[in-house]
Amino acid sequence: MKLEIDTHRLSFELESLAEFSDAPAPAVTRVVFSEQDRDARRYVKGLCAAVGLEVREDAVGNTFARWVGTEPSLAAVATGSHIDAIPHAGRYDGTVGVLGGLEAIRAIERGGGRPRRSIELVIFSAEEPTRFGIGCFGSRLLAGCLDAATLRDKEGRTLDEWRAEAGFHGDVAGVRLPAGYYAAFVELHIEQGPLLEREGVPLGVVTAIAAPASLRLWIEGEGGHAGAVLMPDRHDAFCAAAEIVLSVEAVARGTGAIDTVGTVGVCDVFPGAVNSIPSRVRLEVDVRDIDLPRRDAVLAKIERACEEVAARRGVTVRTEVVNQDAPAQCDARVVDALTRASETHGLAWRRMVSRAYHDTLFMSRIAPSAMLFIPCKGGVSHRPDEYASPDAIAAGALVLAEAMVELAG
Amino acid sequence: MKLEIDTHRLSFELESLAEFSDAPAPAVTRVVFSEQDRDARRYVKGLCAAVGLEVREDAVGNTFARWVGTEPSLAAVATGSHIDAIPHAGRYDGTVGVLGGLEAIRAIERGGGRPRRSIELVIFSAEEPTRFGIGCFGSRLLAGCLDAATLRDKEGRTLDEWRAEAGFHGDVAGVRLPAGYYAAFVELHIEQGPLLEREGVPLGVVTAIAAPASLRLWIEGEGGHAGAVLMPDRHDAFCAAAEIVLSVEAVARGTGAIDTVGTVGVCDVFPGAVNSIPSRVRLEVDVRDIDLPRRDAVLAKIERACEEVAARRGVTVRTEVVNQDAPAQCDARVVDALTRASETHGLAWRRMVSRAYHDTLFMSRIAPSAMLFIPCKGGVSHRPDEYASPDAIAAGALVLAEAMVELAG
Repeated sequence: MKLEIDTHRLSFELESLAEFSDAPAPAVTRVVFSEQDRDARRYVKGLCAAVGLEVREDAVGNTFARWVGTEPSLAAVATGSHIDAIPHAGRYDGTVGVLGGLEAIRAIERGGGRPRRSIELVIFSAEEPTRFGIGCFGSRLLAGCLDAATLRDKEGRTLDEWRAEAGFHGDVAGVRLPAGYYAAFVELHIEQGPLLEREGVPLGVVTAIAAPASLRLWIEGEGGHAGAVLMPDRHDAFCAAAEIVLSVEAVARGTGAIDTVGTVGVCDVFPGAVNSIPSRVRLEVDVRDIDLPRRDAVLAKIERACEEVAARRGVTVRTEVVNQDAPAQCDARVVDALTRASETHGLAWRRMVSRAYHDTLFMSRIAPSAMLFIPCKGGVSHRPDEYASPDAIAAGALVLAEAMVELAG
Repeated sequence: MKLEIDTHRLSFELESLAEFSDAPAPAVTRVVFSEQDRDARRYVKGLCAAVGLEVREDAVGNTFARWVGTEPSLAAVATGSHIDAIPHAGRYDGTVGVLGGLEAIRAIERGGGRPRRSIELVIFSAEEPTRFGIGCFGSRLLAGCLDAATLRDKEGRTLDEWRAEAGFHGDVAGVRLPAGYYAAFVELHIEQGPLLEREGVPLGVVTAIAAPASLRLWIEGEGGHAGAVLMPDRHDAFCAAAEIVLSVEAVARGTGAIDTVGTVGVCDVFPGAVNSIPSRVRLEVDVRDIDLPRRDAVLAKIERACEEVAARRGVTVRTEVVNQDAPAQCDARVVDALTRASETHGLAWRRMVSRAYHDTLFMSRIAPSAMLFIPCKGGVSHRPDEYASPDAIAAGALVLAEAMVELAG
């Protein structure tokens, strides 16, 4: 089958999708269940319907667009990613896998071969943790790895309140997919790291995904007037938090392994007035490693640092583990399909580990899975200047299509 | 003249005023020009009008309620404070000086003596820096110490936008009071420190006000994905900010003087997502000392610490001095009037320095001024558990009334 990607159309659709944003261009902000997210969902569903895919949505907003195969009773082959974006992000993270996946399906259709297995595009709900503080919300639920009843946003609003507002109803437990539902899952994504660009390799075939964890910390000290309370009498929650932030950095650097990363990306200071000593601080901490015991040792060290700071400064630190996931090993058969597809089209590839995590981390628990990476400029993402070239994206979509042809028979 | 304070009514009015709040009780949040501030203004103006005071407001919301004396052409004697409250504050900071000042005027009226000089209650607009980042907004303008044209809130809204919304119009430059407008100014206030309570002294006569300064810092690093950017490649703006926060604390502690205080009360992290490396952080820093050269040496050390952190971490730190004020020396004649008034009523008093700053810091530049402090529980303020007893407040109002009788002749 001759597969051809419509690079121009794919670029146009990516640009169009970027316009559904709560931040001025080139930044993209599209938080799950926001007006922008709902508009973007409508846009993508419209594109899917336009080529005859059968679209369904589940109770939490995961969206499925199926091209029914010649043997509909067989387990489908799936591809997909997400369209939500963290505040002030770029336009390629996730969207390349959704619109690239759709273009791959269209390329197979145009090629004239209808596969035996159905091919399904999945748009995962809320891969980004912005709203509910946990990443891969949708795919965790599909894989049965999340208790959604406890989810709250920063203002205390529940998932049920948010999904009702966005028009999603029904039983959340019923979202879970049965075992064997998909014969294979492949996610196309920008690398979000510098390796492919640095080495001039157009494709990365992901064989493993690093183990992510995130913590919420509440530091409680004693407030007071910034002029009147003398320094020796203070229990400043923000000074304690500053020490913890630097501990996270030091502990992550201290493993001696390049693959350990630790970040404090969220900080809320209460009451937040220039003339008031901070009484309370909330931090959100992200720790990842490809080695699970090493990652968990970092978490333990951060907990000990919190205890030490709390005791020395006379504050309290409460720690909540938001997620502490195992790494994923990709499926050899799906990896092989991707490497063969790359070679079919004369495109160089390399095996690699993903340090960022993706919906594939959870899809790999219920389906044979792998990922296909394309280079992004400077390795940067989660920033407005995130960039992947139209040719790089088209190459990814082409190889994805070729691999799906093989996997779907 | 026999002066008597209606303790019950004064307490009731303080409780009533506390209900104009954007935070659940016992906390009080009342930011200038908010709906709550506007409602509270209406309430206090109503109380003033009810006893026949002539009420006027200036172009920025400073409010003046005058009891005209027997010789209206003489410069008036003034008292007053503020009714705005920082987020999640208490109910006594500022309000004791406004409602206690009003009750002092009523006590003189009830006592039957109409003074030669007019007595004027001033409710200063925005003593707290919450909205525009600068404290004593209203009294700075009265004293001609502020260029209001550059003021912006966090969202970039101007003073003109805000005051129009709150119903204040006219020429901001015209707010400035002419020299000699007031013959004297006295501000009644809770101590916001522990000395009076600790020593069991009911009244503090303030002879000087510590010199305040505040800075805004913008730390600009490099964002990126929290999973993908390796630790050695990072320029994390929040880690740099954490070091600066700890520097402010260390420098303030390092002067060896108990009167030096340094606080970082505001921190905004951008983009503020758990899986995104902070690219930008904004801090607000507050530094005070009763000794001006020592205070300025602390500011210089903080600037040097910022430069060192910026160079070492490959980030930029931009510093803006929001205010850097001189200390105030109170007027001997007004101080003497307060000590005599205390003795007239058999109340112990002590001289003291105010480390918190107040509208008196600026009123002292255009009028002979002093302050009268009453104890507050545990020395705490800017917190919901801020507390001054009805009897302590009544004692303050009584001595204030007695002193004004002398000053207004």
